[in-house]
Amino acid sequence: MSVLEGKVLVAQGGGPTAVINQSFVGAVLESRKFPQVTRVYGALHGVSGIINENFLDLTEATTHNLEAVAQTPSSGLLSTRDKPDVEYCKKIFEVCRTHGVRYFFYIGGNDSADTCRIVDEESDKAGYELRVIHIPKTIDNDLKVTDHCPGFGSAAKFVAQAFSGGNLDNRAIPGVYIGIVMGRHAGFLTAASCLARKYPDDGPHLIYLPERPLTKERFLADVKAAYEKYGRCVVAASEGIVGPDGEAIAAQFTNGEEDDHGNVQLSGTGALGDLLSSWVKNELHIKRVRADTLGYLQRSFLGCVSEVDQFEAREVGEKAAQFAIWHNRDGSVAIRRIGDYAVEYFLTPLSTVARESTQMPDEFINAEGNYVTEAFKNYVRPLVGDLPTMERIAAPVVEKLHKD
Amino acid sequence: MSVLEGKVLVAQGGGPTAVINQSFVGAVLESRKFPQVTRVYGALHGVSGIINENFLDLTEATTHNLEAVAQTPSSGLLSTRDKPDVEYCKKIFEVCRTHGVRYFFYIGGNDSADTCRIVDEESDKAGYELRVIHIPKTIDNDLKVTDHCPGFGSAAKFVAQAFSGGNLDNRAIPGVYIGIVMGRHAGFLTAASCLARKYPDDGPHLIYLPERPLTKERFLADVKAAYEKYGRCVVAASEGIVGPDGEAIAAQFTNGEEDDHGNVQLSGTGALGDLLSSWVKNELHIKRVRADTLGYLQRSFLGCVSEVDQFEAREVGEKAAQFAIWHNRDGSVAIRRIGDYAVEYFLTPLSTVARESTQMPDEFINAEGNYVTEAFKNYVRPLVGDLPTMERIAAPVVEKLHKD
Repeated sequence: MSVLEGKVLVAQGGGPTAVINQSFVGAVLESRKFPQVTRVYGALHGVSGIINENFLDLTEATTHNLEAVAQTPSSGLLSTRDKPDVEYCKKIFEVCRTHGVRYFFYIGGNDSADTCRIVDEESDKAGYELRVIHIPKTIDNDLKVTDHCPGFGSAAKFVAQAFSGGNLDNRAIPGVYIGIVMGRHAGFLTAASCLARKYPDDGPHLIYLPERPLTKERFLADVKAAYEKYGRCVVAASEGIVGPDGEAIAAQFTNGEEDDHGNVQLSGTGALGDLLSSWVKNELHIKRVRADTLGYLQRSFLGCVSEVDQFEAREVGEKAAQFAIWHNRDGSVAIRRIGDYAVEYFLTPLSTVARESTQMPDEFINAEGNYVTEAFKNYVRPLVGDLPTMERIAAPVVEKLHKD
Repeated sequence: MSVLEGKVLVAQGGGPTAVINQSFVGAVLESRKFPQVTRVYGALHGVSGIINENFLDLTEATTHNLEAVAQTPSSGLLSTRDKPDVEYCKKIFEVCRTHGVRYFFYIGGNDSADTCRIVDEESDKAGYELRVIHIPKTIDNDLKVTDHCPGFGSAAKFVAQAFSGGNLDNRAIPGVYIGIVMGRHAGFLTAASCLARKYPDDGPHLIYLPERPLTKERFLADVKAAYEKYGRCVVAASEGIVGPDGEAIAAQFTNGEEDDHGNVQLSGTGALGDLLSSWVKNELHIKRVRADTLGYLQRSFLGCVSEVDQFEAREVGEKAAQFAIWHNRDGSVAIRRIGDYAVEYFLTPLSTVARESTQMPDEFINAEGNYVTEAFKNYVRPLVGDLPTMERIAAPVVEKLHKD
């Protein structure tokens, strides 16, 4: 096999995660080991930084600096919401050719994989040898082919710890607590809310996912039953939950704001939580009802990382460089789960990951559509790893003495 | 000094904190060492558990169990929003007398201190020897006399880490980010949002506190100036910010729901964040505006604790038992800051802490009323301790080559 000499270009797209910089640094440090790599560039603000030639020369970043960036959440190279069309991708390719870039590594979700696919096609048409590798990341865990996505485990850990605390708070001062979790079309992150449960009556008691349409009547019946059973109720609901018509329940509160991918903006508003709260207050006449929208903390909070997620994010970055530079291959790095629990990495064609996304499989959702199954818990536990301690007082009840 | 033989009763009041169980366990384990302590009871759900005689016998809790509870956020003994009047306090006293309680330790804020004060007065009137100690806790940090309150440091750490992540996210995909922080009348917790800043242009760029009235015009002028300077803007605003009339800006969105202390319920709704966002969108015509309401996570999130806060919360609990049982004294445990940084504990009369609360001193707020001073940062840093790493890429910019 001939050695392909030239530059490496790395970029990050879409929403940040807690470990996206591990992938970035893994790809950069691994690339810097190869003699045929003349320089390693990083594009600022994703693909928009490529077409504007906003590059940093990462060959001259120190190892300490890069390792510290790897520990930092959010996109160290900054990001963009631009969704390149074919013309845009042609420009990306042209800039690569002008700069002698021979290896392009793009870290992102299914939109980023699609960008990789088009850029790869353009290079083929032009007869210019360009290795294009998509490195997966998303807190939504909704990429095809791969068993799971780097970034999800850490966000899942944050959500589990948030609901574990919310459950303790709700137990201390009973009422109904509703937490709204990110995930427009896939419920994986919302489902992870149950992961730090310990005692049989711990919340969340109800989990609503975008995969199962929800009616107001059903929601209220569920909350009523849980409230009667436990004297309180903790609900985890995805921002993307839909009504029977398939329309997002939250969508009626947005004023039509969409990003360039045509995604309606659902995060960052308390409206869905307030709506569900008002249903409970007005129809069930429960006074103490509280709602939190977990918001951007889920993907950016400094200091809540799954160790496994961190290592895997690092490895998909390194594998991208290895697949491209040792093996001259294009594709998307994917994770295969083996044993209980180990992983191996493989390369899947870009077209198999591009554009479309997945949802939670049926076996992860209970028959009633208001909770997850043991199969889901077994799936997600190794991705999140150890969780902090929580314990209740275990002590005998004292006999009452008072006589009025 | 005669030895006062009898039972110890411990209870927790008000909103939970991340370290309130350290105080509880400190008081219980210390009390269990004294031979004159016949039993250590814990009241479930605060004062309401006392008048209903819902007690656990903590003399028969294992040390491992209590140590694990100490690590758990939220009130292990559960809580209440009941605010006892004089009649209620008389009942508390009667139950204490019936059960032979001689030491009453109540962990809470200024309302709990007031309950302690009244119960203590009732015992004096009745000529029944009862030692009453208030153990301070509040994430708002608004108790009088004490330098700071256990619970605040951990909540401040959570807020600092949340805004540090929010700042990274906002830098990756620029726009305006607004985070709403708890603290009805005191801005300490909102002010802590700046604590994990590192680079000169890191957010939060603006901090709005309940101590300084805010107009819409002033807010928009500030955001506009920051946005023009940095190309983005991160805002930390207290849920309790008030307009020029002194009315809470958020209050117009609550439907008059108040707790038994007459506090309007401001938390748990996204309305204030949505209002400030709409101002920025409509008046400054900035498209990407996002708001998070940090909500209950600030006080209950499992797994974000300040070590110093943890130790001090433990110590105020232990000192309560020591002041009462070794020294036969009543009062509220307070913290005095000495040197840089050490503390010592002392007992202050219950009346000096009861009912009233404090706000941030003027020297902690800048002249413009939209940020904090170095004096505040020096005050709060030792309470929060180490924060996680965050770092930017340091690498040379690549020269542009492309010619169209």
